[in-house]
Amino acid sequence: MSELDFIQSFLRDNRDYVLEKYMGKTALTVTSKSSATDLLTEVDLTIQQRFVEQVRRDYPGDVIVGEEGEYARLPEDEEARAWVIDPVDGTYNFVRGIFPEFGISIAFVKSGIAQAGGVLLPEPDLTMLAERGAGSFRNGEKLRVSEVQRLSEACVDIDSGGIEGRKTLLKKAQDALLGAGVLRCRGSAVVSICQIATADTEGYLHMRLQPWDFAAAQLIVEEAGGMASRPDGTPLRLFDRMRGAVVISNGAIHQELLDGIKR
Amino acid sequence: MSELDFIQSFLRDNRDYVLEKYMGKTALTVTSKSSATDLLTEVDLTIQQRFVEQVRRDYPGDVIVGEEGEYARLPEDEEARAWVIDPVDGTYNFVRGIFPEFGISIAFVKSGIAQAGGVLLPEPDLTMLAERGAGSFRNGEKLRVSEVQRLSEACVDIDSGGIEGRKTLLKKAQDALLGAGVLRCRGSAVVSICQIATADTEGYLHMRLQPWDFAAAQLIVEEAGGMASRPDGTPLRLFDRMRGAVVISNGAIHQELLDGIKR
Repeated sequence: MSELDFIQSFLRDNRDYVLEKYMGKTALTVTSKSSATDLLTEVDLTIQQRFVEQVRRDYPGDVIVGEEGEYARLPEDEEARAWVIDPVDGTYNFVRGIFPEFGISIAFVKSGIAQAGGVLLPEPDLTMLAERGAGSFRNGEKLRVSEVQRLSEACVDIDSGGIEGRKTLLKKAQDALLGAGVLRCRGSAVVSICQIATADTEGYLHMRLQPWDFAAAQLIVEEAGGMASRPDGTPLRLFDRMRGAVVISNGAIHQELLDGIKR
Repeated sequence: MSELDFIQSFLRDNRDYVLEKYMGKTALTVTSKSSATDLLTEVDLTIQQRFVEQVRRDYPGDVIVGEEGEYARLPEDEEARAWVIDPVDGTYNFVRGIFPEFGISIAFVKSGIAQAGGVLLPEPDLTMLAERGAGSFRNGEKLRVSEVQRLSEACVDIDSGGIEGRKTLLKKAQDALLGAGVLRCRGSAVVSICQIATADTEGYLHMRLQPWDFAAAQLIVEEAGGMASRPDGTPLRLFDRMRGAVVISNGAIHQELLDGIKR
């Protein structure tokens, strides 16, 4: 079984559980982490635990990086084989909101570069998969970013990730925010980034993103013809920083988006 | 048939048509209005046309105010019986995006105050209905706003409505934007405002909203125990202004939200 097959199989096997918990979410155990709005549920923990067990069984020795608990740190050896999971990206949306704007994100990484990645949006039932050099697919259909050429005609998704990130965003990225044709803030990095790959939007900007938030989605966008970088234009590498800023786009508007962000 | 029954019946009768067009949206005829990102589809026009015909038949003499074409103006007689429709609120989301974040909004108005209102979110199939003084309901279940007391623990939805509105928003509402616990920008006023009534969020802020965008949703929130005003705290009246700023909340955070907006 290839690493991509392993990812696809894990996502498929866990859809029913996540959906069932979402449908019955009034009964969820919800706790707060760093602040009243930084939420954690039993679903985040269960999905991550299941994933850890399966990686230990099938790929003993591989490093695991994940959003929750002891796994929330960069690998000591940047060159190692690593698995990066966000068990529920968009936990706040999972707990509150009419639309299920959250997803499970998994990437397989070698030397700090994602080689295979998958994102499941349980409802509507969309699985997005990519392997480096082999394209990206949504439920089997090949993906290609949009042809929109100008920021003023583009839809850009932003995310603040709490009040500190929002201050930085308003201070540094004001030109980008004012230059975009349409602005959205959905509160799930994987939902937002994947929509660049599906040609539903053109750009994404976050001033403090964690590697598990973009590991799979970055690959999915790149394999659909898009682009990812830090705000200064340097390559977006998974393990070079915790909570760094990321810019992801359809490629055509990338420079214009970078120009709208102060260094 | 009461005005509320008329609204409910219209929403129910049009769900299949809207959903079918959404599912097959790659075949839609989409044109631009004021800018490349201000979109219009055949669905907006068809829904509004059907509504106009039914009001003319059942309530001849009543005024009709709607988002499209000749209906997009305030009534000459502010005291008149009026029907206010946004055939598809969130047209951009209808055309682009993974989640169906759009809705049909209809209000029946007397003397500039909504007496009955309904919003249909076709998928998930949610109908929100309210009659002044009689509460508001989601698929028959009584609605009540959230108990969150502080802006720093609240989820606030903003909307920019194009680049000009966004400039005003960043300039005048920066304190509100930085003070909210969680920030979202969904791009559909009815989706955003109704989520205050369903206790999924606490606040909504838009610097240039049209009356058809909030006519029904304002009533739904007020009847769920929430509050609506202009940024200076004066009552939010439907026909006193085109493109005025609106603030809607669960009530508890209302003053804090107003305090975060410069006059």
